[in-house]
Amino acid sequence: MIRGKVTGRVWSSKHIETMPSGALLEVEVAGSIIVAFDPLGCAEGEEVLITQGSVAAAFFTKQKAPIDALIIGSIDET
Amino acid sequence: MIRGKVTGRVWSSKHIETMPSGALLEVEVAGSIIVAFDPLGCAEGEEVLITQGSVAAAFFTKQKAPIDALIIGSIDET
Amino acid sequence: MIRGKVTGRVWSSKHIETMPSGALLEVEVAGSIIVAFDPLGCAEGEEVLITQGSVAAAFFTKQKAPIDALIIGSIDET
Amino acid sequence: MIRGKVTGRVWSSKHIETMPSGALLEVEVAGSIIVAFDPLGCAEGEEVLITQGSVAAAFFTKQKAPIDALIIGSIDET
Amino acid sequence: MIRGKVTGRVWSSKHIETMPSGALLEVEVAGSIIVAFDPLGCAEGEEVLITQGSVAAAFFTKQKAPIDALIIGSIDET
Repeated sequence: MIRGKVTGRVWSSKHIETMPSGALLEVEVAGSIIVAFDPLGCAEGEEVLITQGSVAAAFFTKQKAPIDALIIGSIDET
Repeated sequence: MIRGKVTGRVWSSKHIETMPSGALLEVEVAGSIIVAFDPLGCAEGEEVLITQGSVAAAFFTKQKAPIDALIIGSIDET
Repeated sequence: MIRGKVTGRVWSSKHIETMPSGALLEVEVAGSIIVAFDPLGCAEGEEVLITQGSVAAAFFTKQKAPIDALIIGSIDET
Repeated sequence: MIRGKVTGRVWSSKHIETMPSGALLEVEVAGSIIVAFDPLGCAEGEEVLITQGSVAAAFFTKQKAPIDALIIGSIDET
Repeated sequence: MIRGKVTGRVWSSKHIETMPSGALLEVEVAGSIIVAFDPLGCAEGEEVLITQGSVAAAFFTKQKAPIDALIIGSIDET
C-alpha cells in the first residue's frame, strides 16, 4: 500500500454508469496526486493508506466498480 | 485513479480483432502521455479521470477487450 | 518482487472492515516508502522481500483482504 | 495503453514452455525499453499501442501465456 | 516484459509457506533491482526477460505462489 495526505476532492457529473456513489479524494503521494475512492469519510489533511489495482476494485461486492485506488484506512497520528 | 487532460486522439487501422470500436484518446498525466479508451465522448482540453489495468478491461462485459486504461469520468470545473 | 528495509510500523484504528489484523510495516524500497502487510513478524532494520498487486491479496484465503503489498520473506544476511 | 516505437527484436531460445511462438519486439516508450509480444507483424520504426498486465495475457485464449505486454495496434500516421 | 541482467541471488530462510522452492535472482533493470523467480537456471551476467504481476504468478499451476516477477526466457546473444 502507499500512504498519502488528502488534499482535496474531485467531482465528476459526467461519468460511466458503474461509477459508485461516494467521495473521490485527491491524495498526495510522494509529490504526485492520485484520486482514490473514500469509503471512510476522510477529511482534507488526513493521512491515509491506499490500496491499488484489482485489489481496490474487489472492495465492491454488490456491483462491479471501475475503481483502481481505494482508501483502506486512516493512519493514526503518533 | 489518475487525472489528466485530453490532448489528442489516436487512430489505429491495423489492430487486433478484439479492439473495441470507439475513441482512443491521448491524455497527459503529470507530463507523460497515456492512451485511454473513451466511452464518454470527451473533447480535447477536458480534464478526465482514468482507471487502469484489469479494472479498465472489466468495463467491457459483452466482449473481452485489450484495454488497460479507461476514462471513467470528466472532472467538473470548480 | 522488490527488496527493501523495514523502517517502521503504521497503525490505523479507522479502517475498512476487511482489513486483516496484523502488522502493517513501512518498508523503504529504493528511496521510496511502501506499506506492506507482514505475516512473518519482521523487525525494524530487517531486509525483506515484497510481492505486490493481486498476488499479494491472494495470500489471504479465508477472507478477501485489501492488501496489495505483502512481505513474503526475510532476506538472509550473507 | 502506452504508445511507443519499435526499435528491434529479441530472440530467446532458452525459455519457459508456455512462451507463445511469435515475435517479441523491443519498443521504446518515453525513453525506456519494454519488450512486447507482436501479433500484428510490426516493423522497426512503427509506432504502436501497447496494453499491459493481465489484460495482455488475456489475449491468449487457447493457452496460458506469460505475456504482460502486447501490441494491440499500429498507430496511423497523420 | 522487461529485460535485465542477472546480478546475484537472494536467499530467504524465513519465508511464508507458499514460497515455491527455486532460485530467486536479483536482476538489474534500467538501473533498478528487482527480484525474480528463475525456473530456467540462469547464471550471473545472463540477459533475461521478465514478466510481472498476476501473469507471473499464473506460471505456478500446482500451487498458489506469491511470485510477481518471473524469468520467462534468456535473451540470445546476437
